[in-house]
Amino acid sequence: LINNQHSLSPNFSPQTERLNDSSGSNSGGESSKESSRCSTPVLDADRSDRLRDKMRRRMESGDRWFSLEFFPPRTASGAVNLISRFDRMGSGGPLFIDITWHPAGDPGSDKETSSMMIASTAVNYCGLESILHLTCCNQTKEKITDYLTKAKRLGLKNIMALRGDPLGEDWEEEEEGFNYAVDLVKHIRSEFDDYFDICVAGYPTGHPEAESYEDDLRHLKEKVDAGADFVITQLFFRADTFLKFLEDCRAIGITCPILPGIFPIQGYQSLRQLVKLSKLEVPEDITKVIEPIKDNDAAIRNYGIQQAVEMCRVLLESGKVPGLHFYTLNREVATMEVLRQLGLWIEDPRRPLPWAVSAHPKRKVEDVRPIFWASRPKSYIYRTQDWDEFPNGRWGNSSSPAFGELNDYYLFYLKSKSSKDALLQMWGEELMSEESVNEIFTCYITAQPNRRGHKVLCLPWNDEPLASETNLLKDELEKVNRRGVLTINSQPNINGKPSTDPIVGWGPAGGYVFQKAYLEFFTSSENVTALLKVLKKYEPRVNYHIVNVHGRNLTNAPDMQPNAVTWGIFPGREIVQPTVVDPVSFMSWKDEAFALWIEQWAKLYEDESPSRMIIKYIHDNYFLVNLVDNDFPLENCLWQVIDDMFELLDVPPELLNDGAVSE
Amino acid sequence: LINNQHSLSPNFSPQTERLNDSSGSNSGGESSKESSRCSTPVLDADRSDRLRDKMRRRMESGDRWFSLEFFPPRTASGAVNLISRFDRMGSGGPLFIDITWHPAGDPGSDKETSSMMIASTAVNYCGLESILHLTCCNQTKEKITDYLTKAKRLGLKNIMALRGDPLGEDWEEEEEGFNYAVDLVKHIRSEFDDYFDICVAGYPTGHPEAESYEDDLRHLKEKVDAGADFVITQLFFRADTFLKFLEDCRAIGITCPILPGIFPIQGYQSLRQLVKLSKLEVPEDITKVIEPIKDNDAAIRNYGIQQAVEMCRVLLESGKVPGLHFYTLNREVATMEVLRQLGLWIEDPRRPLPWAVSAHPKRKVEDVRPIFWASRPKSYIYRTQDWDEFPNGRWGNSSSPAFGELNDYYLFYLKSKSSKDALLQMWGEELMSEESVNEIFTCYITAQPNRRGHKVLCLPWNDEPLASETNLLKDELEKVNRRGVLTINSQPNINGKPSTDPIVGWGPAGGYVFQKAYLEFFTSSENVTALLKVLKKYEPRVNYHIVNVHGRNLTNAPDMQPNAVTWGIFPGREIVQPTVVDPVSFMSWKDEAFALWIEQWAKLYEDESPSRMIIKYIHDNYFLVNLVDNDFPLENCLWQVIDDMFELLDVPPELLNDGAVSE
Repeated sequence: LINNQHSLSPNFSPQTERLNDSSGSNSGGESSKESSRCSTPVLDADRSDRLRDKMRRRMESGDRWFSLEFFPPRTASGAVNLISRFDRMGSGGPLFIDITWHPAGDPGSDKETSSMMIASTAVNYCGLESILHLTCCNQTKEKITDYLTKAKRLGLKNIMALRGDPLGEDWEEEEEGFNYAVDLVKHIRSEFDDYFDICVAGYPTGHPEAESYEDDLRHLKEKVDAGADFVITQLFFRADTFLKFLEDCRAIGITCPILPGIFPIQGYQSLRQLVKLSKLEVPEDITKVIEPIKDNDAAIRNYGIQQAVEMCRVLLESGKVPGLHFYTLNREVATMEVLRQLGLWIEDPRRPLPWAVSAHPKRKVEDVRPIFWASRPKSYIYRTQDWDEFPNGRWGNSSSPAFGELNDYYLFYLKSKSSKDALLQMWGEELMSEESVNEIFTCYITAQPNRRGHKVLCLPWNDEPLASETNLLKDELEKVNRRGVLTINSQPNINGKPSTDPIVGWGPAGGYVFQKAYLEFFTSSENVTALLKVLKKYEPRVNYHIVNVHGRNLTNAPDMQPNAVTWGIFPGREIVQPTVVDPVSFMSWKDEAFALWIEQWAKLYEDESPSRMIIKYIHDNYFLVNLVDNDFPLENCLWQVIDDMFELLDVPPELLNDGAVSE
Repeated sequence: LINNQHSLSPNFSPQTERLNDSSGSNSGGESSKESSRCSTPVLDADRSDRLRDKMRRRMESGDRWFSLEFFPPRTASGAVNLISRFDRMGSGGPLFIDITWHPAGDPGSDKETSSMMIASTAVNYCGLESILHLTCCNQTKEKITDYLTKAKRLGLKNIMALRGDPLGEDWEEEEEGFNYAVDLVKHIRSEFDDYFDICVAGYPTGHPEAESYEDDLRHLKEKVDAGADFVITQLFFRADTFLKFLEDCRAIGITCPILPGIFPIQGYQSLRQLVKLSKLEVPEDITKVIEPIKDNDAAIRNYGIQQAVEMCRVLLESGKVPGLHFYTLNREVATMEVLRQLGLWIEDPRRPLPWAVSAHPKRKVEDVRPIFWASRPKSYIYRTQDWDEFPNGRWGNSSSPAFGELNDYYLFYLKSKSSKDALLQMWGEELMSEESVNEIFTCYITAQPNRRGHKVLCLPWNDEPLASETNLLKDELEKVNRRGVLTINSQPNINGKPSTDPIVGWGPAGGYVFQKAYLEFFTSSENVTALLKVLKKYEPRVNYHIVNVHGRNLTNAPDMQPNAVTWGIFPGREIVQPTVVDPVSFMSWKDEAFALWIEQWAKLYEDESPSRMIIKYIHDNYFLVNLVDNDFPLENCLWQVIDDMFELLDVPPELLNDGAVSE
């Protein structure tokens, strides 16, 4: 269809020639690759390419990358922590991450700790290009096919094909079964054609069970010839080891990318354990250093970091290594430090869109979302996961398929990182009145400790501290929250700032971004009554939606018509409008927003307890309000709207303030 | 699909209530009606409503309208003139026009003078809501169904159902045939259900062949009961005549709109002729005035205007007349003057989009077009007439179905309004060199007479004098055309002017419009060589496409990716971007743009004549260039680009200037 993704127009390419002398330029070279792949203007090619194409383009541009390996967590809370680690380490700009396969841990199941679920979450909810490991020995073809089918359904596009360790000592080759990784590679290609990008393992010192180093090289060649796209190596301790291996691979005709596996030594135990598993020998000069300090974790880690940095420098300077693969052991510090010292860690990532995109293939053209889920993007992705098409270019009228219900507020990728106790400390062990709720909101805004001395780092609607953009509105937000205008989402108006602006910028360089001022809050029906009177003065400058938990939506907005509140203008592209205020979606959002009062807050307290009653009262009686100031070039008038509302309430502000401070 | 038109979301309406106290407001009331009908943000309801809905909303808002009746032309050149009259009179804002049906003139044929073709052109190419008359007597049901099917296919949505005058005196009712208009109304409803809006004729003094006034009223009632949506009356000479008729209609239960047919007396002969046809009597007080001045056309027209204005005032002041229907006799002056005096003529029409929209139902969501056809909208509509879908919200990558070939440059709705002689006078009976061509372009820009003293009012690429917007660039344009940069399309950069701006404004009030500077021109390959060197300095600020007649397209634009060059931000709406520079369409446009050199200009001269050779040389050797300055907030840099090009050419400007002035 006109506005959706399109293949190349056959009758165009032949007509068009690229100027040799301009194709080198950024605007030429880069984006030409880009536009031929994705339909939506702002998207960088990275979003729509498959992994092997990303690698190819990075190699062409000489732009080195890194990747990160994680293993699945053992516990549910471990899963929650790992997902937020993905978010943090993802911001450093890895080209991909990979998740190991643990046959013992039911790796293909729907358990939140399974390899399959973790990889799926990384792709769908963290927007990370991910590789799922898969081991084949002792597995039937049917089982493997089931795993691959499920992986494909979940949006996974890359498989690391491994043999895996035989279970038990008395393992023998099976006639029909999978005996080597090459059998798995062949199976994937025969069953799924070219759908998956396939990675295989290389052993710089030869696989421990191989008859010889040369024999092992031949096995690697077989795996690549069978259809593997690139190689990641086992860890090693000397750059020379890898460089020789690389040379030998090229010598026998292995031409695909070969990525060195880097293992920053992080501790004495982990090193010994890994060496045992991988049957590797630690060079004497390393053991000589480590043994004396084996009980000093900090010292060992510092040494590991230095050792890894030096080795990586040699590898990169060889000019033969396009990217580095890190065995993180699910830890952040050492790997991040190594990457920082190598200058590979992206400190200030450019955002292709104002919100974090999902890496699921079917979402690759998505570039419009309602603003309501700005602080709960994972919930938005969850509630729209069944959509077959995603808005591209325009949201459209009542165009969204129905949103999925959000019944389980405890899905591990949605769960708060804070424990119940921590939440009680932040939000109050005991609430005395609505004013104590105002105070919690105010403390969250100001980042000041509450009366019990605990900082309020999150709210049910915001699992993170205030965004730097929202900080621009801090003073005004504090003022209104103190008085019972409980804000949960807002953005300032922006009249054409550079797309590279560190705070509000997004999209390709050389563009301009714009915003309409937006404010969303819960407030009492008394306030709403006054607000509605006030809003008449602001017609048609201000659009509003006002709804309570029962779903009575008062609005002056053109029915069914979305209001674009964020947009960007870029060189050589169509307009992009990534966030809208959409009346239809708002009704789905309000169900979630109101439910969070109960699910996340009220349920912290005993049944029938005053605290729970207070939250319940707010849930039952407050309204959810959103306001848009359409005059983005003028000064934001929404604060004036709220001030006018307070005036109309005709209550001396001091009194209200006291109310908010004393209980 | 997401970005295209959608029906109301069933699960939304019930959830949403309009605030009683806000629904009266413009932003509420107006647009709520609007958005529930059309998917594309900027469109006024008028664009997507059917005629009877437009009438209803006008009556609700108390907003009076007028409509215009024309008859099909007798000659081909008459057709050309009538179409440009449609464009002129359409700008005054008629709610609809109607085209009479002339059984003698092969009214349903594809001849450019047929009623069917004229009505189709009014709808498709002039964007006018149109009613096609249709008479049924002496016609078979099959024939009538053919006509209606063809009308529907052409995009016509409204039929004026008439009996028509029996051919020959010995007419008798046929058992199975159509004897009265009511038969035709029934037939339309039975064959086409509710597709057409149907209008029928009313006779304020009774139909001449009716047995009685009351009997005729009953016939009208039958026609309305059979499914007619509104009534237009025969002309009359006194307001009372109509008001009594209206009262009598209401009395017998005719509730639909009844529009008075107004006939401004424009001349003695035309009055007598019409009176004869309609078997009406001219009141004595009118004949008393006219007879003495029968030979003074001006005097009679002035009287006619006064008489019509007075009568219309009475009708409007009665509060019972929502709109006035004018029998124009295909003339402009009298009707426009009456409408001006009544204050119904729109002097400064608001543009829903920067370009004139088509009224064909399948185009009602269209809101994006390539900028190239800005001066040839009818050609664009012709070349896209076979598309099933039209861009809405975003153009997309290589999204356009193939453009139709433009082989016939003499389609009456595309033909220049100027005669061959006039064109020769404007563009030169004899061309001596490329410089004389530069001069013609320069004279067109400056509106100065050429060396032979003739003003250049049009060019093959612009059938109208310079647009007021382009006038903003006049001085710069003159300078570059003088030196062989032959501009055919351009727009200044606009950084957020009010959508109500008289020159560059468009769309609903309360919004802001933006533009990127655009310049399109023909120029020599020498210039292009220099230009390409210069453009490297302007990467990536300036995007360009450079192509010659053979289709070699040099560009630094992200391949296949359109560049939005006009967009608007409006209260409570998504972004609208009505014009783009699209690489794919540009290749179709260049075929047309180059062909116009030959078809419209070269062919004015003898074969082998020097003049024709010069144009042929330009056609064969020049390049078509378009430039976009992406930095719309900064000062337009495109003039600097051209200046840099001239400098690089390293030829003393004086010399070039002389060249341009002397032959």
